Amino acid sequence: MEENNKSRREFLKKSALVSTALFFAVNPTNSFSFQKNSNIKSRGYAAFDETGILKPWTFQRRAVGDNDILIDIKYASICHSDIHQIKGDWGKQQYPQVPGHEIVGIVSAIGKDVKNFKLGDRVGVGCMVDGSCRNNEEQYCEDTLFTYGFSSIKEPTGITQGGYSNNIVVNSHFAVHIPNNISFENAAPLLCAGVTTYSPLVQDNIKSGMKVGVAGIGGLGHMAVKLAVSKGAEVYAFTTSEDKIEDIKSFGTKEVIVVDTLDKLDDYYQKLDYMISTIPAQFDVGAYSSTIKPYGTFVQVGMPKGFELTLNNLSFASNRVNYRASLIGGMKDTQDVVNYCATNKILPKIEIIKAEQINEAWQKVLDKKARYRYVIDALTF
Amino acid sequence: MEENNKSRREFLKKSALVSTALFFAVNPTNSFSFQKNSNIKSRGYAAFDETGILKPWTFQRRAVGDNDILIDIKYASICHSDIHQIKGDWGKQQYPQVPGHEIVGIVSAIGKDVKNFKLGDRVGVGCMVDGSCRNNEEQYCEDTLFTYGFSSIKEPTGITQGGYSNNIVVNSHFAVHIPNNISFENAAPLLCAGVTTYSPLVQDNIKSGMKVGVAGIGGLGHMAVKLAVSKGAEVYAFTTSEDKIEDIKSFGTKEVIVVDTLDKLDDYYQKLDYMISTIPAQFDVGAYSSTIKPYGTFVQVGMPKGFELTLNNLSFASNRVNYRASLIGGMKDTQDVVNYCATNKILPKIEIIKAEQINEAWQKVLDKKARYRYVIDALTF
Repeated sequence: MEENNKSRREFLKKSALVSTALFFAVNPTNSFSFQKNSNIKSRGYAAFDETGILKPWTFQRRAVGDNDILIDIKYASICHSDIHQIKGDWGKQQYPQVPGHEIVGIVSAIGKDVKNFKLGDRVGVGCMVDGSCRNNEEQYCEDTLFTYGFSSIKEPTGITQGGYSNNIVVNSHFAVHIPNNISFENAAPLLCAGVTTYSPLVQDNIKSGMKVGVAGIGGLGHMAVKLAVSKGAEVYAFTTSEDKIEDIKSFGTKEVIVVDTLDKLDDYYQKLDYMISTIPAQFDVGAYSSTIKPYGTFVQVGMPKGFELTLNNLSFASNRVNYRASLIGGMKDTQDVVNYCATNKILPKIEIIKAEQINEAWQKVLDKKARYRYVIDALTF
Repeated sequence: MEENNKSRREFLKKSALVSTALFFAVNPTNSFSFQKNSNIKSRGYAAFDETGILKPWTFQRRAVGDNDILIDIKYASICHSDIHQIKGDWGKQQYPQVPGHEIVGIVSAIGKDVKNFKLGDRVGVGCMVDGSCRNNEEQYCEDTLFTYGFSSIKEPTGITQGGYSNNIVVNSHFAVHIPNNISFENAAPLLCAGVTTYSPLVQDNIKSGMKVGVAGIGGLGHMAVKLAVSKGAEVYAFTTSEDKIEDIKSFGTKEVIVVDTLDKLDDYYQKLDYMISTIPAQFDVGAYSSTIKPYGTFVQVGMPKGFELTLNNLSFASNRVNYRASLIGGMKDTQDVVNYCATNKILPKIEIIKAEQINEAWQKVLDKKARYRYVIDALTF
């Protein structure tokens, strides 16, 4: 246990996702039986270096183990994290690497010990694909394997390969059921953007009567707005894109504030109970948090380059705001958000694209032109 | 009100203490009557530039206004903040400037409207000397005037001048009573080091059975340890100074951890309920906060150069720790901590020095050689 803690600390200190992967590689704790079947041939789009240009690539995935399922992918959507990781913003990467951690499809093979899925089930996979943790906070566990770019001795390419592909093999604990009352393409963005915003909102008991700010209205932010509105909160959306105003109003917000300069925040000084920020870059945390009442909560879910955020501590002392960061959500939250959104018709605003449009779409994400999630049709891989 | 908020935001954005002072200068909101009496002659030690070398200086303080008291200073103690501010670490300063915001003495004159003090009372003054706020969080109010270096049209030198001096004039709301059961020299450090650590510990209801970490065991930290111990907490003290171990044990800690390298924190991974950090410099907040259980609280009271602290957000997400900063405490907390420490015999560990030793003492504070508070005998000014 102590040894585990130390390794965990090392991981955190280095802030390089790859370190956990290396730990995993030399300390396999999985319960897979020895693989009897042959590897799975996959076709996807991979990056070959830090320039982050994606090209078609054919590769092998591991054979389906006793606890695994093989998924015939229908759609995979594009998350800003894909770009951050592939470009090395969060640590050095191994290439070729197939990104993608918002994945939906149909179960097309199952291992002999799989209990929770059967052939033909509609299924989704998010940011995690394997690991021993079953504590509803799998994303914080030592040996959790993330969906792409993590070293794995079981994978023929040496690392996990993500969902910009026609299929994927995952431990069945890390898949969720997609109900029939939501389409595949609408479900895909819930697997990361949905759960990442749903998890803190539910944990912090966002409810009717609360004034909730959402900072950064992209893929995650627009889901945060819709989810907070669905909980009855009065939602204030803070965006830097004036041309998103009408869209965001249609999501049910009380107000949309275009923060072209920070003084636009002044009118909201200590007005909100809570704020969730999806901004995936360095920004003035103190200025945004000044919109929250003293002793309110600010939750950061966007992850900037190098994971670093600088706080002005005098500003924070004056605000008396509690700052917390949150990383995706556990598997229970992932299933919950899919069910909740299907039942309550809380759907992402999406644009379906072909595989050959991925590079163009990535550039639009960086240019804040996505409205609000690009979903890749896996038939085009 | 809106206008006030804007000014407040400007203050926070600029992070320069001087900006509030300027606001105060052009928007006097005090209720002082026109001054009938003559200015007060003072003798103290002042800095003349950012080198922070203090020399004897004779200057004038404002006459005693209707709501003011004049204090014959007995002792003033040395806070790390004195050094930060005088050296310009928190913004450009006006010189000559007399530092010092841990001040005790005897009331030697009172304005006609003063109700809470009489001549001869034992009295203390901390970081604030004037302002209109009466909300028990005066330290966060717009027009609060801090004890030294803040522009004031009422002061003959143009700025407030602190307690390294033989006397001071303050609005009586910003003074507290020093009970007879504590000596002046022991009471002095309570006015900043005491209240700054007491305020969050009480607000967060630190009590028996809690595991509390204190990071940085200097003037503030050693008071945090004693206060948390007095509340029944199991206290873990984290220091970089091996030669403080025996002292710190004598304060009643459960354990003393010498953090010469960050891996010394590994054994305490997610062990504590709460941590208060007095570290007045940039440090690895993520590494220290990893000692706290998920959803526990980390309170930062030390203020680094430029007030800036950089967080590793992945580390923070994994820790799931609530981060908050806290600035001193209001006047109620200031009176409370003095009474509490007097009643419960919670006394700082001090060394009394003469005025001519101030420069040497400052260097020792910077070199982590203070054990733990230097208290200047005001007879030597």
